[in-house]
Amino acid sequence: MYEGVVQDLIDELGRLPGVGPKSAQRIAFHLLTADPADVTRLSEVLAEVKAKVRFCERCGNVAQAELCRICADPRRDQTAICVIEEPKDVVAVERTREFRGTYHVLGGAISPMDGIGPDDLRITELMTRLADGTVTEVIIATDPNIQGEATATFLSRLLKDMGIRITRLASGLPVGGDLEYADEITLGRAFEGRRVVNV
Amino acid sequence: MYEGVVQDLIDELGRLPGVGPKSAQRIAFHLLTADPADVTRLSEVLAEVKAKVRFCERCGNVAQAELCRICADPRRDQTAICVIEEPKDVVAVERTREFRGTYHVLGGAISPMDGIGPDDLRITELMTRLADGTVTEVIIATDPNIQGEATATFLSRLLKDMGIRITRLASGLPVGGDLEYADEITLGRAFEGRRVVNV
Repeated sequence: MYEGVVQDLIDELGRLPGVGPKSAQRIAFHLLTADPADVTRLSEVLAEVKAKVRFCERCGNVAQAELCRICADPRRDQTAICVIEEPKDVVAVERTREFRGTYHVLGGAISPMDGIGPDDLRITELMTRLADGTVTEVIIATDPNIQGEATATFLSRLLKDMGIRITRLASGLPVGGDLEYADEITLGRAFEGRRVVNV
Repeated sequence: MYEGVVQDLIDELGRLPGVGPKSAQRIAFHLLTADPADVTRLSEVLAEVKAKVRFCERCGNVAQAELCRICADPRRDQTAICVIEEPKDVVAVERTREFRGTYHVLGGAISPMDGIGPDDLRITELMTRLADGTVTEVIIATDPNIQGEATATFLSRLLKDMGIRITRLASGLPVGGDLEYADEITLGRAFEGRRVVNV
């Protein structure tokens, strides 16, 4: 519909996740009238990101060197590994400031429907990290959905005879939530995982 | 939260209209794992768009030369001008295949709340185009909202003594719509603009 390069831009933007044809058009027209410096910066950072960003050789997180910022930090506790699905989950856990260990990014979750089995995840790399006996706790923090639970079950079985403490994040009511609006599975889990109140 | 260039990318994406922090993060991680050729194409097209795209000297539409595709086309009817707010409205009207004249992009609509007055729109350029008497009809196709209506009223008054036919797009029920769900203003306009049925 549009002339040459404008249509190319709309097409390329429309390939991004969550950007439909209407949003692509809106973004393209915004860029056409935007400050050229802003557009140049976006163009440059896109070119840079593929050149500079790699994945940590130890944990699989995004990194700008051989090791990511967390694996390269000597103050992090090397005896605990938090296993997550994606690099963005690292940021979610870091935000809690509850965990001072290191991470292991699986690169997804077991999902037979999508043809993703254990061999497609970075499980061999995890086993290698556990081999020298430094790690005493593996916290499984895969997503609390079917694929994440399947992955958690698979990992717990795989690791259970290694003499390592295997834990899973608690399921329960979200803080600030409302009992009335909790789904029955979450509420059921909250009952299962109830704790004694010490007063 | 993220390392250097990844955070830069998330920040730059987050500046785009309709892209919030969560979408920016999702798009960034999609790009990190995407085919490098796709990311390069997007980066290049962004650099190109600012270099190649300009605005038509006659009508203000996006163009890749002095005149846009439509103004440069000798088959277009030079006696009718359709006045619209933005270049993307050209595409909307072209899609109808109802109009064979040329366009005039105002570059917005009168909106005192946003400090946009008639002097901020391409109205002088429109008057210049009308001066030689070639144009016999001006179709005002600004948006059917407060700003668009104000602009339409302003333009109709400005042009009324020039001996040119001034028309405004019909307001009424959208085709395929449902009377029950029409808002009262649209339904009122549909009554006002009712036509005699010839059988």
